[in-house]
Amino acid sequence: MSSQTYRAIAHRKFNALQSLIPKNWLLDPLPDPLPLDVRSLVLKSTVLTPDELSITSSHDATSLSQLIHSRALTSEAVTTAFCKRAAIAQQLTNCLSEVLFLPAIERSRALDAEYKRTGKTRGPLHGIPISLKDTFNMKGFDSSIGFAGLAENPAMENAALVDILLDQGAVLYCKTNVSQTLMALDSHNHLFGRVLNPRNTRVTAGGSSGGEGALIAMRGSVLGIGTDIGGSVRIPAMCNGLYSIKPSSQRIPFIGQEIGQLPGIDKLGLQASAGLMATSVRDCELVLKAIADANPWEKDPNVAFGPWEGQGEIGRKPLFGVMRADGITTPLPPVSRVLDETVEAIRKAGFEVVEINAPAFKKCHSLANKFFGIGGNNYTFDILERTGEPLIPWLDARLRRKGPADLMQLSGLHVKKSALEKEMLELWRDKNGRKIDALICPVAPHPVPEIDKWNGVGYTSAFVVLDYPAGTLPVRDVSNDDLNDKLPDSEALGGWDSKNRDLCELTTFIPLVFCLSYHYHMFQCSCCPFPCSVEAVGNSVLHGYANPSEIGHPNPNDRNVYLNTKLSVQVLAPRLQERRLYQAMKLIHKILHGADSETRAKILSQSTVA
Amino acid sequence: MSSQTYRAIAHRKFNALQSLIPKNWLLDPLPDPLPLDVRSLVLKSTVLTPDELSITSSHDATSLSQLIHSRALTSEAVTTAFCKRAAIAQQLTNCLSEVLFLPAIERSRALDAEYKRTGKTRGPLHGIPISLKDTFNMKGFDSSIGFAGLAENPAMENAALVDILLDQGAVLYCKTNVSQTLMALDSHNHLFGRVLNPRNTRVTAGGSSGGEGALIAMRGSVLGIGTDIGGSVRIPAMCNGLYSIKPSSQRIPFIGQEIGQLPGIDKLGLQASAGLMATSVRDCELVLKAIADANPWEKDPNVAFGPWEGQGEIGRKPLFGVMRADGITTPLPPVSRVLDETVEAIRKAGFEVVEINAPAFKKCHSLANKFFGIGGNNYTFDILERTGEPLIPWLDARLRRKGPADLMQLSGLHVKKSALEKEMLELWRDKNGRKIDALICPVAPHPVPEIDKWNGVGYTSAFVVLDYPAGTLPVRDVSNDDLNDKLPDSEALGGWDSKNRDLCELTTFIPLVFCLSYHYHMFQCSCCPFPCSVEAVGNSVLHGYANPSEIGHPNPNDRNVYLNTKLSVQVLAPRLQERRLYQAMKLIHKILHGADSETRAKILSQSTVA
Repeated sequence: MSSQTYRAIAHRKFNALQSLIPKNWLLDPLPDPLPLDVRSLVLKSTVLTPDELSITSSHDATSLSQLIHSRALTSEAVTTAFCKRAAIAQQLTNCLSEVLFLPAIERSRALDAEYKRTGKTRGPLHGIPISLKDTFNMKGFDSSIGFAGLAENPAMENAALVDILLDQGAVLYCKTNVSQTLMALDSHNHLFGRVLNPRNTRVTAGGSSGGEGALIAMRGSVLGIGTDIGGSVRIPAMCNGLYSIKPSSQRIPFIGQEIGQLPGIDKLGLQASAGLMATSVRDCELVLKAIADANPWEKDPNVAFGPWEGQGEIGRKPLFGVMRADGITTPLPPVSRVLDETVEAIRKAGFEVVEINAPAFKKCHSLANKFFGIGGNNYTFDILERTGEPLIPWLDARLRRKGPADLMQLSGLHVKKSALEKEMLELWRDKNGRKIDALICPVAPHPVPEIDKWNGVGYTSAFVVLDYPAGTLPVRDVSNDDLNDKLPDSEALGGWDSKNRDLCELTTFIPLVFCLSYHYHMFQCSCCPFPCSVEAVGNSVLHGYANPSEIGHPNPNDRNVYLNTKLSVQVLAPRLQERRLYQAMKLIHKILHGADSETRAKILSQSTVA
Repeated sequence: MSSQTYRAIAHRKFNALQSLIPKNWLLDPLPDPLPLDVRSLVLKSTVLTPDELSITSSHDATSLSQLIHSRALTSEAVTTAFCKRAAIAQQLTNCLSEVLFLPAIERSRALDAEYKRTGKTRGPLHGIPISLKDTFNMKGFDSSIGFAGLAENPAMENAALVDILLDQGAVLYCKTNVSQTLMALDSHNHLFGRVLNPRNTRVTAGGSSGGEGALIAMRGSVLGIGTDIGGSVRIPAMCNGLYSIKPSSQRIPFIGQEIGQLPGIDKLGLQASAGLMATSVRDCELVLKAIADANPWEKDPNVAFGPWEGQGEIGRKPLFGVMRADGITTPLPPVSRVLDETVEAIRKAGFEVVEINAPAFKKCHSLANKFFGIGGNNYTFDILERTGEPLIPWLDARLRRKGPADLMQLSGLHVKKSALEKEMLELWRDKNGRKIDALICPVAPHPVPEIDKWNGVGYTSAFVVLDYPAGTLPVRDVSNDDLNDKLPDSEALGGWDSKNRDLCELTTFIPLVFCLSYHYHMFQCSCCPFPCSVEAVGNSVLHGYANPSEIGHPNPNDRNVYLNTKLSVQVLAPRLQERRLYQAMKLIHKILHGADSETRAKILSQSTVA
């Protein structure tokens, strides 16, 4: 296969996607260079009417659902507004992979007509636009997951979750961009390019569900579905200041996805979860309950039986635990501080928070990484070689073909996993044997870092190893005070910790210029001519990215990069107790920000500029 | 290692077990030869007092629990009675592996004292003796599972389920004999010998939890816990005319067992379940609810969250489905007839039963068998070779060392499994889309066969592949009418079907003589000198067994072997809906036999001779 094959496919794919966006929804010209925060560009354009700006800016899905039910809004109005805003999000952040705007608007009209005619809605998601990660098969559309080798091969049937969402009344209007292999932590690939973080284009949008994160942060979506096997829902949620829940793997239907791996290999290693990202904590319940109410175990045999009400609950006077560090990478000061603040707020509200010291936590990280490698990456390289597609630079330094694990090695990993699961059960009791209702810990040991700088996934992958439901809550923006912190004098715990400290000591900030005239230059350095893998294809550009720190680029010290990013905390509940997790998140959120509905406006004003 | 090593271990193990049975509980002399039905020998001995005979013969666990709660009986009286009867069962059927009679009686006394002092019981199983398959680790006792190579190595801690049963008040007083490797379908091994079927020593007691089955059929236990990965609870339940439930694999704690396999390999293949055998259908609820009420997910991380009330339910007017055949082995006429009778009875009672034709059912059998072989049996042979122990003859014809499956093969099996699980979801809707509340099908395609003649496990292993909760209900004894059936003229479906027909056409009955003077000759043929692998060790005898049909022994036609065995049906519910299964079984049982409590005496009189 010619090495040009993947470029030609990417070119065709770019043009196909572009052609599905109505001409009058295009920003012309695109701002060049991009501002640091691209969100305000939505307001400057005239693509959305004032009503459409209000629909997309001022509501969560629960509120939109209420307005559609009360006939104050039609699904068509809501869907059209989000399609337009998603189109702008795509142009500014490269967040979409598949565009279904016109069929979605058609469906919204049909739903409106049906509601008018019958007086009945389809279900709790009636008329609500929902965006989906590219992995989910939708009949007639690609699930290329950013591989040229998987593009131009439309799915023959819907993923189970797609059918459920449609049954419950949702309007599906786009699929979103991902990281190459779904294992990189920046959503960057050679088919669609790199997803930018709309609130701060210097920092990563996260991955692998980074397109979802950026789209929702742009408020081009109110509710998105991603997948998470190392943190792929929670990391982009943190990066984009969103609420998220990664349930246990058997909770939300996962079948019918393209995950770019040897079919069946997922059953031998860690189980990924489908999860959600939202702009309010209550929307997490809206989605989880809507899915549970649809008897998902009748659609996907992997889903555990259990209605929403049967998914656990917190006690009347819940007891919280806090796990401050994983023993591998000590959280940087801003991360510790926001955890402290959260714990303090919970205590002030009259609830007890006990310190949980879990020595086994540190074993999770390397075990997860070993599981990620069992296939020896051969399936990935086979896909790439089909079209001559290279790895993205971040992966190029990390991914090699290896022999797959054999039965003895696989069994050995599972022995370790089982022992760890057993050991970690102790998390759920304090020293006096009292039940811990929910645990709080960091999402990552650092704030939202620059692109391609995410340092390990131990704080998120641990809860894939353990299969705990885990959610993220945005707490507040990084403040100027956070930037003055000093690291402790103690020695680093090891390589991961040392690399993490670099993110605090010397931030490798280089002026990034994003050229967006129908294409994305992902990296242009103005101060030195180190190799940049930007490659022109017609009038679009495919974007490699060379990490300056890896090729000896000067590292000016600029912690200001963290300003205009959100600090979040992670909340955990025991396996298959998603309702317990949700109730804990709701309570913590109320303590931090007031009740969801009362303070929605306040939170939204932090989440978006509109 | 000397080839004599395993014999010496077996000899020591035999003596150790024997020494834990009080002298005055021994039958002396043992009847030689044994009668066909050994159950009545309990009555002829004077080991049990009339009260003890009544305690062990006339109650299920629910009734005993009520009597202990109301102080009409003490746990000590109940425990002593069952210990005595278990001792006799052991002498007549070789059903035990570990004996804990004296510590159990001590515990029962302590429980009685506690109840007297506090007025409170420990839990729903307070004072009830429960027997456990040898696989479950109990601190200080072997989990040899019939391998000399695993004997004389006491467990360091209890299995999670053992702790839960103790917490709920149970008295654990013995562990029970199994099949070599746990994969053979007769409970026969070189460490303990062969378990006999107490109601009919010509036929198999089933396996691998055959010791449980025989012990309960002797009423040496009222409630037993086994494990099932191909049918190992349901098959001995059928063979011994018992009620059983094999839950989904994530329902009852499984960790802390010795299963004689490469540690961790179970996570790569099919998941076994812990399950139960009982003398009444209501006892199934007693145990499942007691375990669920103990929050087992806090003890075993593999257990799915879900209180008993959250484990599903049948509808108000349940709709049943019947699956008459698996497409591999057509049930023999007595099996079909008892299924017909059950369906007719349900219909007569006013419930609809729809015919379910599941073409995918036939794929389950070979897929299960492929999963069983992924380790290439190397771990088994390693254990055997440690002490020079041979395979039992039934396995010797079937088990070889092979290369273990590689990652591609394992993944491929899981692709097939996932596709099958999806396809089989269709079982739960009839043609008109109505929900099927429960399914009925055969337990096996034949009645309880002669020893070492069980023909395949497709009807049970299918629901391990699918992980459905599955139960067995004894319906009635084989009647003389059943013996006059003719097979259809049609051709056999294949090898399995052909072999199955042999069980009806020509029964290979050979007079079996069991010599039981402190040992078990497993096979002595009076009519020809074909090689019998009985081997003397001191005054005990280790028992190989040569299958006469395999070495050209004449096959006199005698279907009468099936008389005095029970015909059963299997009932199924969707994954993780154990309460739904129980409710369906209870309803079917009521239709067939009247309500559990009302007709207990009637059922018991069929189940035992006492």
